[in-house]
Amino acid sequence: MSSPAQRLQHVSQILGSAAPAGAQPLNPPTPFRIAVIGSGNWGTTVGKILAENAAARPRMFKHHVQMWVHEEQVAGRNLSDIINQDHENVRYLPGVKLPANLRASASLVDVAKDADLLVFNLPHQFLRRITSDLKGKLKPRCRAISCLKGLHVTGSGCSLLSSYISEQLGIACGALSGANLAPDIARCKWSETTVAYTLPADFAGAGHDIDSDVLKAAFHRPYFHVNVIEDVAGVSVAGALKNIVALAVGFVEGLGWGDNAKAAIMRVGLVETIKFSQMFFPESAAATFTKESAGVADLITTCSSGRNVKVGRHMAETGDDAETAEKKLLNGQSSQGVLTAKDVHDLLVTVDKTGEFPLFEATYQIIYGTESIENLPTLLGRC
Amino acid sequence: MSSPAQRLQHVSQILGSAAPAGAQPLNPPTPFRIAVIGSGNWGTTVGKILAENAAARPRMFKHHVQMWVHEEQVAGRNLSDIINQDHENVRYLPGVKLPANLRASASLVDVAKDADLLVFNLPHQFLRRITSDLKGKLKPRCRAISCLKGLHVTGSGCSLLSSYISEQLGIACGALSGANLAPDIARCKWSETTVAYTLPADFAGAGHDIDSDVLKAAFHRPYFHVNVIEDVAGVSVAGALKNIVALAVGFVEGLGWGDNAKAAIMRVGLVETIKFSQMFFPESAAATFTKESAGVADLITTCSSGRNVKVGRHMAETGDDAETAEKKLLNGQSSQGVLTAKDVHDLLVTVDKTGEFPLFEATYQIIYGTESIENLPTLLGRC
Repeated sequence: MSSPAQRLQHVSQILGSAAPAGAQPLNPPTPFRIAVIGSGNWGTTVGKILAENAAARPRMFKHHVQMWVHEEQVAGRNLSDIINQDHENVRYLPGVKLPANLRASASLVDVAKDADLLVFNLPHQFLRRITSDLKGKLKPRCRAISCLKGLHVTGSGCSLLSSYISEQLGIACGALSGANLAPDIARCKWSETTVAYTLPADFAGAGHDIDSDVLKAAFHRPYFHVNVIEDVAGVSVAGALKNIVALAVGFVEGLGWGDNAKAAIMRVGLVETIKFSQMFFPESAAATFTKESAGVADLITTCSSGRNVKVGRHMAETGDDAETAEKKLLNGQSSQGVLTAKDVHDLLVTVDKTGEFPLFEATYQIIYGTESIENLPTLLGRC
Repeated sequence: MSSPAQRLQHVSQILGSAAPAGAQPLNPPTPFRIAVIGSGNWGTTVGKILAENAAARPRMFKHHVQMWVHEEQVAGRNLSDIINQDHENVRYLPGVKLPANLRASASLVDVAKDADLLVFNLPHQFLRRITSDLKGKLKPRCRAISCLKGLHVTGSGCSLLSSYISEQLGIACGALSGANLAPDIARCKWSETTVAYTLPADFAGAGHDIDSDVLKAAFHRPYFHVNVIEDVAGVSVAGALKNIVALAVGFVEGLGWGDNAKAAIMRVGLVETIKFSQMFFPESAAATFTKESAGVADLITTCSSGRNVKVGRHMAETGDDAETAEKKLLNGQSSQGVLTAKDVHDLLVTVDKTGEFPLFEATYQIIYGTESIENLPTLLGRC
């Protein structure tokens, strides 16, 4: 990477309105083409951001940003047609005007094949099929950013979703995560995010390839502040484990223990998340968790609202088990925290480390075992 | 200090129900006498905790815990008499039964003169008079813990309230701070706190003097989890600067920017608080802010509710200035954040460092200058 001073100058040129014409690496030989895979509320919001930046920086990015839509019919019309004609995703982001240069398409390969920057933003469970369909169809120097939350944690190990994308498609892949409730960002309410990306060995050079400057230019908006770092693992771990913490926050909220107890759970959760990350991804940095939006800020937002808190609270208030709570509150969908708590427990059992993660383990035992929520203070006695 | 293993063993002996009779240093030659200065809702809550522990550990602590009451009349009776006869502080902590061994007194010197551990828990503005009245009246090896929030920040420098107590009274003084809303703790709802204390040069030895084991035994309850550390400066800085952050959280809440923006403010606030602490108290540790209840947990709790958030929110919602907001919401009392924002600004001007603290400076300029809340994202652009 270039020096901080060079990067600062470069970014300020990109963001400034009076960038000198013809300056390199401001004008890549061919502007970068951006595509988004996924068009839920978060995918559409990110597509909107990218299209706004593409329109604002014509020498850096191709004007049109392609967005893949899992086609469906809405009032007798294709969702992709509605987005392209009415500039609104009436199904997943109603009421938000989209830029005209955000182009929806139901053809995955058409959307992705010429992309220089491919942004994955779709539910976890579709990732396997999507990467399978894209194999061998991408440009050799296509680079990716994953907005998918989470890790692939099993009893036998723990890997990043971005690594899965890299391995399946043979392309470098980073991650985007932060305190990012989509509806507020879609309405241009101020928030922050973290983009993590490590330059690949075949990096083609500034202006010719995706780097931190290009990522900042692509994602940063006046209302969406981006910090680009290199710690893909830290960002991903934070995005996954926060959901366990949010369940436990729901537990103490449901018991009526108030803000002291909720803050205590978040504090312990932050400590255990950092410990987990450094145990399984020694290359990750503690500062990602304490200084970045993807760390402490996303933890706070996730523990303020959302489905994991709701499930935990309902369990504490009613005595229902997690499955019943999910049936009643989420139409039987799983809350991510319930799944992740089990994956993390299984992994910690394998490496014989459950004792070092009393909050994660207590949350697991409350959901899947016979432990009671009232016992949390005792279980956390050593924290 | 003793080794971690020794301390662990020592604490587990103290906390265990079957501590061996006659073991040293479990049984100090004379049990330590505890006194509390102050009887507001937080002072009374801490007095209750200390009295519970004194009763539970008769060989470590004198049975009675004395609590100084700023005498007032309630329904024709002295408040101190009500506390001693009815075991309830009807004025400041109504509805909570107090232990019979918590003894209220209006005589400051009587309460303090024989204390081995003196806990200060009263409003900041009374500290000067109280320390003046106590000068020369304490035991030579009396030790103190300050529960007062904050720092003494002026344009010319920055010092700890605990240092002020030490200097005025010639006694070692630590600090207690955490995510501690008093009413919930008084009702035995689970929370955590941080006690910071550095052993003085004239430490008399384990069992003969206040140390981390004694502090843990005095403050820790099953519902009030205590971690004892040495970083008095970090704990104090965190307790002071959180109020500025809470004001700014109120600003973005008042504009309806939602949880993303609130979390962003807390994140930036945490980063600036650590930077401030390391600039003015190089001996303080970043981990105090990211791992301890006095750090990130107290920040979260303070930014969830309380008078600073209310004042900031009201300013954003109505356009009222801070003074008007305080008049309407706090009967003209000052919110601590409004005062601290000015103190911190003055100090940063003196050392020419305002540019390194964009959130603190923006908050100051919004309150005392002509900056607008809507401009916060731009002002924080570099964070």
